[in-house]
Amino acid sequence: MLNEAEAARLCVVLVATRNPLNMGAAARAMSNFGFTDLRVVRPYEAAFRDARSAVGAIDLLQSAREYENVADSISDCSLVVGTSAGTLHRDVQHEIHRLETAACLIHQSLATHTETKTAVLFGSEKFGLSNDDLSHCHWLLRIPARPEHSSMNLGQAVAVCLYELIRNAGAKTAIPLPATLAEPATMEQQELIMQVAMEVLVISGYLEKHPRANMHAELRTIIRRLQINSKDSKALLGMLRQTLWKIRASRN
Amino acid sequence: MLNEAEAARLCVVLVATRNPLNMGAAARAMSNFGFTDLRVVRPYEAAFRDARSAVGAIDLLQSAREYENVADSISDCSLVVGTSAGTLHRDVQHEIHRLETAACLIHQSLATHTETKTAVLFGSEKFGLSNDDLSHCHWLLRIPARPEHSSMNLGQAVAVCLYELIRNAGAKTAIPLPATLAEPATMEQQELIMQVAMEVLVISGYLEKHPRANMHAELRTIIRRLQINSKDSKALLGMLRQTLWKIRASRN
Repeated sequence: MLNEAEAARLCVVLVATRNPLNMGAAARAMSNFGFTDLRVVRPYEAAFRDARSAVGAIDLLQSAREYENVADSISDCSLVVGTSAGTLHRDVQHEIHRLETAACLIHQSLATHTETKTAVLFGSEKFGLSNDDLSHCHWLLRIPARPEHSSMNLGQAVAVCLYELIRNAGAKTAIPLPATLAEPATMEQQELIMQVAMEVLVISGYLEKHPRANMHAELRTIIRRLQINSKDSKALLGMLRQTLWKIRASRN
Repeated sequence: MLNEAEAARLCVVLVATRNPLNMGAAARAMSNFGFTDLRVVRPYEAAFRDARSAVGAIDLLQSAREYENVADSISDCSLVVGTSAGTLHRDVQHEIHRLETAACLIHQSLATHTETKTAVLFGSEKFGLSNDDLSHCHWLLRIPARPEHSSMNLGQAVAVCLYELIRNAGAKTAIPLPATLAEPATMEQQELIMQVAMEVLVISGYLEKHPRANMHAELRTIIRRLQINSKDSKALLGMLRQTLWKIRASRN
């Protein structure tokens, strides 16, 4: 977890981005997760213009600073992290950290280097970061995608990296254990129960006495909360069917 | 971390999606992170067609199953999780878990319920999941975005949720601590060092004797790896300037 001052020390640098939608998506993820400092290096002019003028464009896209080259964009930074799909960069031979580890290192930098900024660089959609771009980086981070398909959409890559920076590792300690270890009922089984129960409610006159705008949804929610297991669902269904049969039979 | 069998038991359900780009993005994130079971409920027909026929469309989009309603799409599932921007759902009153916790609960379900599937539902771009959709869910998950801007792009929300499911909590224990706690040199300071060093290499004849395709990038990479601190950078710069001055002076 980051505090506000730490988040303000992170800058996202988009290098040679081509697609205005990706710029917008990167800015949106930054806004979602509380980051404000967006920098763009050599963007496709039309793309940058389109992204800024898009309906619903995020404020921080308007205030994004534009640079001629990577060096200028990171001159006030003391840590520069490149992003990589994990394919080999023979010419650079940087250390590559998985995102989980990278986020810890970035946290340390944001917390301890209070006078300087920390940058995360994202390359173009097609080519990623060039060797020249990478030479500005201290090390690289890799989102742990499948090796068979490791190339991510730019907007999604930005969102995932920023999420890892703001996620709260402590949040997962509070896991309520499931009450039952029996195989739960499938939705099909639960839906059957609901349908028969609805018929019972209708035929029993319950619905007429207690009219509801959306009894289906209300009943379904109740059944979901019950967390019926598979075995019990069969028993319950039998009971409901019997009830329905009885009411019908007694009407004749 | 999930194994392959567990990942195969997760299905992503897109309900009433409007934008073909978001469908493509959801499918791409699934492929990046090793998930295969995509289901769509009441998609905008044109959007689904466009998404499937897009250049570079992911295979799993071709094999995505289409459903008339949410109930059918999840009939083989024993746990159904809705996604929510965290705004109140008064009519449903589901439990809402932060994504970090939700992922643990989903892991448990994927690991223990081997005969049934687990679904994560994503609503439409504009309205999210309806109350009727939500009535099919056992509980909701919330990506911990800023309350002031909690509505995420659909493709990015899918990517972040799936990333949380595949991330390796253990990976972050292996953090190499930084060698120095002094304030590191800024990129500007490092760039100055590099420029003067390059001049020295040129004027000294080093570059002529050891020609390189991209000496700038090579030198910059070396300097980055040194992790020079701010104080040392001033001293080094002084040394290099003195060296340069000396060579220049002796040539005259």
